[in-house]
Amino acid sequence: LKIFTLNSNKELAEEIANEVGVPLGKSTVTRFSDGEVQINIEESIRGCDVFIVQSTSGPVNEHIMELLIMLDALKRASARTISVVIPYYGYARQDRKARAREPITAKLVADLLTTAGATRAIVLDLHAPQIQGFFNIPIDHLVAAPILSDYFLGKDFNPSELVIVSPDHGGVTRARKMADRLKAPIAIIDKRRPRPNVAEVMNIVGNVEGKTAILIDDIIDTAGTITIAAQALMESGAKEVYACCTHAVLSGPAIERIDNSVIKELVITNSIQLSEEKTSPKIKELSVAKLL
Amino acid sequence: LKIFTLNSNKELAEEIANEVGVPLGKSTVTRFSDGEVQINIEESIRGCDVFIVQSTSGPVNEHIMELLIMLDALKRASARTISVVIPYYGYARQDRKARAREPITAKLVADLLTTAGATRAIVLDLHAPQIQGFFNIPIDHLVAAPILSDYFLGKDFNPSELVIVSPDHGGVTRARKMADRLKAPIAIIDKRRPRPNVAEVMNIVGNVEGKTAILIDDIIDTAGTITIAAQALMESGAKEVYACCTHAVLSGPAIERIDNSVIKELVITNSIQLSEEKTSPKIKELSVAKLL
Ligand SMILES: Nc1ncnc2c1ncn2[C@@H]1O[C@H](COP(=O)(O)O)[C@@H](O)[C@H]1O
Ligand SMILES: Nc1ncnc2c1ncn2[C@@H]1O[C@H](COP(=O)(O)O)[C@@H](O)[C@H]1O
Repeated sequence: LKIFTLNSNKELAEEIANEVGVPLGKSTVTRFSDGEVQINIEESIRGCDVFIVQSTSGPVNEHIMELLIMLDALKRASARTISVVIPYYGYARQDRKARAREPITAKLVADLLTTAGATRAIVLDLHAPQIQGFFNIPIDHLVAAPILSDYFLGKDFNPSELVIVSPDHGGVTRARKMADRLKAPIAIIDKRRPRPNVAEVMNIVGNVEGKTAILIDDIIDTAGTITIAAQALMESGAKEVYACCTHAVLSGPAIERIDNSVIKELVITNSIQLSEEKTSPKIKELSVAKLL
Repeated sequence: LKIFTLNSNKELAEEIANEVGVPLGKSTVTRFSDGEVQINIEESIRGCDVFIVQSTSGPVNEHIMELLIMLDALKRASARTISVVIPYYGYARQDRKARAREPITAKLVADLLTTAGATRAIVLDLHAPQIQGFFNIPIDHLVAAPILSDYFLGKDFNPSELVIVSPDHGGVTRARKMADRLKAPIAIIDKRRPRPNVAEVMNIVGNVEGKTAILIDDIIDTAGTITIAAQALMESGAKEVYACCTHAVLSGPAIERIDNSVIKELVITNSIQLSEEKTSPKIKELSVAKLL
């Protein structure tokens, strides 16, 4: 068994290797002068069961190509099996034709991984569980909800003063699961999104008055949805608002929005390694290394 | 018949569409806030024979992913055939395992294109003609040498005062072809390259004394090879040195090296659209639109 990392998630890969008790495989991923990916695998992997840890987070196209080229190299170096561990699966929101002549990039990427040589995939909190069916190779779908729930359990809230809130209809099942674990009721933000990366809140289904609300989502991208949802909760009488998600994409104005929002604390996982400048005193990061 | 372009080579695609006499297909390729590619094809292509023009030049990984996602969208929109027109085929130098555990990225990219939906490929001056065999779909391999040769024919050099020079052993066939067309003899630079993107010249096989030398290569990347070759030619008594190539990658210090070199003029094609800052008074660009 060998574990390799590429450039997206080195710290998480180190942690996973520590948990498993093997050193990370020796390899370097650099660029030629013209920007083409250059990969060196510095130890034999012939006949080995190889795992590669790489989130297809931003810069997404760079990270996907690194992963594909690494797969090609491992396959040609006679690895026995190659499992791709993808904590954050990019392009997951392009999982259907919402309009005519759209691509289904989430399916394309699954096919590209298989073509390049992946024999198994391990993913975390896919945006839609249906994406599992896009893979023609075995896939393990893990969920981070217990990790997030356990963190809030540790805060010893009184369940009767707690409410778990889904920021949209698509996330109700996720909120339901967390609510079960925290023995709390749920509420739903009934919103309409006029166009991508722009969110608008409508009204709240459920009772939040005087309660500590915990918003749960899978991906927080520009943080428009979540900050407006938090605002709506406060306006509906919530005492305080926490937010949590598995995948902290945090693109564009996300950090600024979170800093300026009514959100008390944002709990995320390390499925995406945050760049240096993406920090906020409100963000609390939990590790998914044990899970993976 | 419909011709679409992506972001790498819009000007050339316009020229090709003009030559063919059809307007370019309406589509936009942009990015979501997190950097993921968003494609909109704004006209029906059902049952059409579609051509997409895209060089996989730098930023190479962005351009490859744009092309793959566009292929997916066209395939799902029921195009009858999809031909990819790739004037510059990136990753072509990674066409074999030179050392253990290297990827063969040129083959990987061919497979990715097929997986995504390409049914035919049209390429120009592949770094190695063997790359044609990497494709499991029909491929047309065009050469730009006649365009370059015709340009130099127009200069009315005296063939007896001319010599065509290959900067390495791999390019001798290319130099031979140009020499036939210009009725001139050839010479070869006998060089050794200590590591990638670094070039070293050894000695010159053939007579260049008092002659106008024309260096011909397929790719000029950091311009190390070509500028040192030009220097060596002058030191061996050449009267003046021209250089030409199909693919002007011109990464890193290339422009500076060319400006500071003994090269009188560098003749290139528009297989790669040069960015604004990559200009030099020494560079003369020819169009391959008619050819494609
Ligand atoms: N990277 C992205 N950023 C923002 N929106 C996206 C992205 N990828 C896809 N979408 C759009 O998001 C919508 C799907 O999101 P959802 O309804 O949350 O599943 C579709 O309309 C997609 O076109
Ligand atoms: N983008 C690139 N820039 C520089 N060198 C490369 C690039 N891609 C591959 N190579 C190396 O170039 C060599 C092949 O070049 P050549 O001998 O000209 O076919 C191999 O050793 C490759 O590892």
